[in-house]
Amino acid sequence: MAESAGYRALDETSVVAVAAPFAGAGPHVAEEIGDGNLNLVFRVKGATSSVIVKQALPYLRVAGESWQLTRHRAAIERGAIERHTKLAPGMLPALLHFDDTLSALVMEDLGGYLTWRDALIAGQPTPTVAAGVGEYCARVLLGTSAPALAPAERNALRDQFGYSELCSLTENLVFTAPFTGSLTNRYDDEAAHLAESLSSDRSLRAAAAELRFLFKTRGEALIHGDLHSGSVMVDAAGGQARIIDLEFAFFGPIGFDLGMLLANLAFARLAHDEQGSRAYGCLIDGYAEAFWTTFADESHRLWNAGEPWYDQFLATVIADAGRYAGLEMIRRIVGLAHVNDIDLLPPARRLRAQERAVSGGRSLMLGPRCTTFEALWRRATEEDTYA
Amino acid sequence: MAESAGYRALDETSVVAVAAPFAGAGPHVAEEIGDGNLNLVFRVKGATSSVIVKQALPYLRVAGESWQLTRHRAAIERGAIERHTKLAPGMLPALLHFDDTLSALVMEDLGGYLTWRDALIAGQPTPTVAAGVGEYCARVLLGTSAPALAPAERNALRDQFGYSELCSLTENLVFTAPFTGSLTNRYDDEAAHLAESLSSDRSLRAAAAELRFLFKTRGEALIHGDLHSGSVMVDAAGGQARIIDLEFAFFGPIGFDLGMLLANLAFARLAHDEQGSRAYGCLIDGYAEAFWTTFADESHRLWNAGEPWYDQFLATVIADAGRYAGLEMIRRIVGLAHVNDIDLLPPARRLRAQERAVSGGRSLMLGPRCTTFEALWRRATEEDTYA
Repeated sequence: MAESAGYRALDETSVVAVAAPFAGAGPHVAEEIGDGNLNLVFRVKGATSSVIVKQALPYLRVAGESWQLTRHRAAIERGAIERHTKLAPGMLPALLHFDDTLSALVMEDLGGYLTWRDALIAGQPTPTVAAGVGEYCARVLLGTSAPALAPAERNALRDQFGYSELCSLTENLVFTAPFTGSLTNRYDDEAAHLAESLSSDRSLRAAAAELRFLFKTRGEALIHGDLHSGSVMVDAAGGQARIIDLEFAFFGPIGFDLGMLLANLAFARLAHDEQGSRAYGCLIDGYAEAFWTTFADESHRLWNAGEPWYDQFLATVIADAGRYAGLEMIRRIVGLAHVNDIDLLPPARRLRAQERAVSGGRSLMLGPRCTTFEALWRRATEEDTYA
Repeated sequence: MAESAGYRALDETSVVAVAAPFAGAGPHVAEEIGDGNLNLVFRVKGATSSVIVKQALPYLRVAGESWQLTRHRAAIERGAIERHTKLAPGMLPALLHFDDTLSALVMEDLGGYLTWRDALIAGQPTPTVAAGVGEYCARVLLGTSAPALAPAERNALRDQFGYSELCSLTENLVFTAPFTGSLTNRYDDEAAHLAESLSSDRSLRAAAAELRFLFKTRGEALIHGDLHSGSVMVDAAGGQARIIDLEFAFFGPIGFDLGMLLANLAFARLAHDEQGSRAYGCLIDGYAEAFWTTFADESHRLWNAGEPWYDQFLATVIADAGRYAGLEMIRRIVGLAHVNDIDLLPPARRLRAQERAVSGGRSLMLGPRCTTFEALWRRATEEDTYA
């Protein structure tokens, strides 16, 4: 796709014309609300309703304009939202319009929602969100996997959602840079010893390289591709979950989505541990378990009748999820992209949480494969893991 | 592709016009020499040279005209020959012409060659063939796998070689039918107890279903897809190997090709065992080992520098190969397609070889994962494996 043909970055004035047909009666007012790395995000309010406009920028925002990315990811996100919505209706924001020329999606405004990450950082109870995300995972992952689709349909979907430029970004930032002392890494001065210990660890580097190969070759399902707690929106009551940010979607390993999500719940748990909020930490333990058991139960329901190897499938998935969770726990400490759960802690507590995250991550990546959720979660969160 | 537009099945008269431009000076004479299930194969001789014409039939020949298959597989074979030839020049027959309308390939005539299977059945030494096939596997499998190709090139190749109708045929005949008492199964009356023991074995059925999922989802490399000893042509001296019959090629698991080949060498070994040809059996042991070590050494050479997890990769590949080998050893006894190594034995010896093949296959599919070639080969060929 040519980057230039008709494309222009929207601003708070020009976005109104794009959004107005979908935002009810005017007058319309727009505000840029994005804090992401890849996109401009606007809220456009009319007299009685509002919508969100998300526009892909042709470069990685956090890295400045020098790091080019094609805007094709907007079309990928649109396609993934449509496919996942069919399988899990009501669990994603409604897509109102897609403008291919502008690489812009006009979507339902989840006004009053916040990210699950922010809710967890704030210590807000989110009683049924975890189960909702588990159900989403079972429906979309099992629903786009081998037994669910005829070969021709699976080929078509796989062609549509091939290994994209954002997958290459993940490959670089998640699987490679943190383990090779890359210049793109970012970490606190006090955590420099962690970064150095990683880049000199041949076993860990080999484990990350193996996971990279699996990420690239295991086309198991149309995965979300970036399913952390900031990709889950939660309503004010903490009940309903909506899944956003599907531009990383591709045909990849089921365990990647599950592992990412669990690692991000582990960050929340470690952060509350270090702040002494033991009671809320127990709630998070429960959320992680509810996420996993709902995924397991729902996928059992969807699949078990026709697939006699369901138990073996689940064991493979938890083993994979454990290794990907380990990767995520490490790269969010020393790599380019961090998480606020950890970064917003006061320095001494932050360092301890970082050390625990890296230690848990190493244990998950290098230790024996996890065969149960309990083993995964214990290793992700325990006080003393082997380093 | 419409099955009818311009397509007609060739005969010994009409094939001459297709082949003549590539077969040197005339007069030209054609002979149908195919014994396969999917195609017509002609040798067209001129005054001084000859060529092979292979035409895809729109149905599975062994099952009659009722089992439709698209002729698109001729284009798949052509593409796979071209790609594999780039990576392993001289190891496949030269492709002289491709007629898309007729679904026909005009190829170098490997006159004087026989299949490796026939050479092994005849007890003919083939001193360097195994190493040649191992080298072919390393070059084409590693050369089309993730680290060797940029993402865009890998996406394009994966689109070109998606899950085809022949993959679905494999899925059915190899992974499903033998374990579900399918009506397409064929076996000797004396072997009925083996077939029945398989279709009532839930563990085995689950293991086969898991392998089917891996076959469908692990897009590791452009694999041959049907690499048994009848897909390897051997020159009269038993030195040179040429790989044929690439219509099953697709983006699949590396271990599938390796396991199929090893299982077919195991059939040769079991057959000679049962005939008391211990010395030739030892030669076959050496061929299997040479195949594996050449694959391992050559892939080490191709890959090790850039991939720190090579040892782990090789361990995964041998574990996968062991399970696929087990599948092959079972399905060739009770499924639709058999092997002459076993079928040509006198009845009492045949039954014993069949029992050993099924027993070895069960051990490979259900036992602990193989971590070395030696473990795989011992289980495939030992006298008493657990049944």
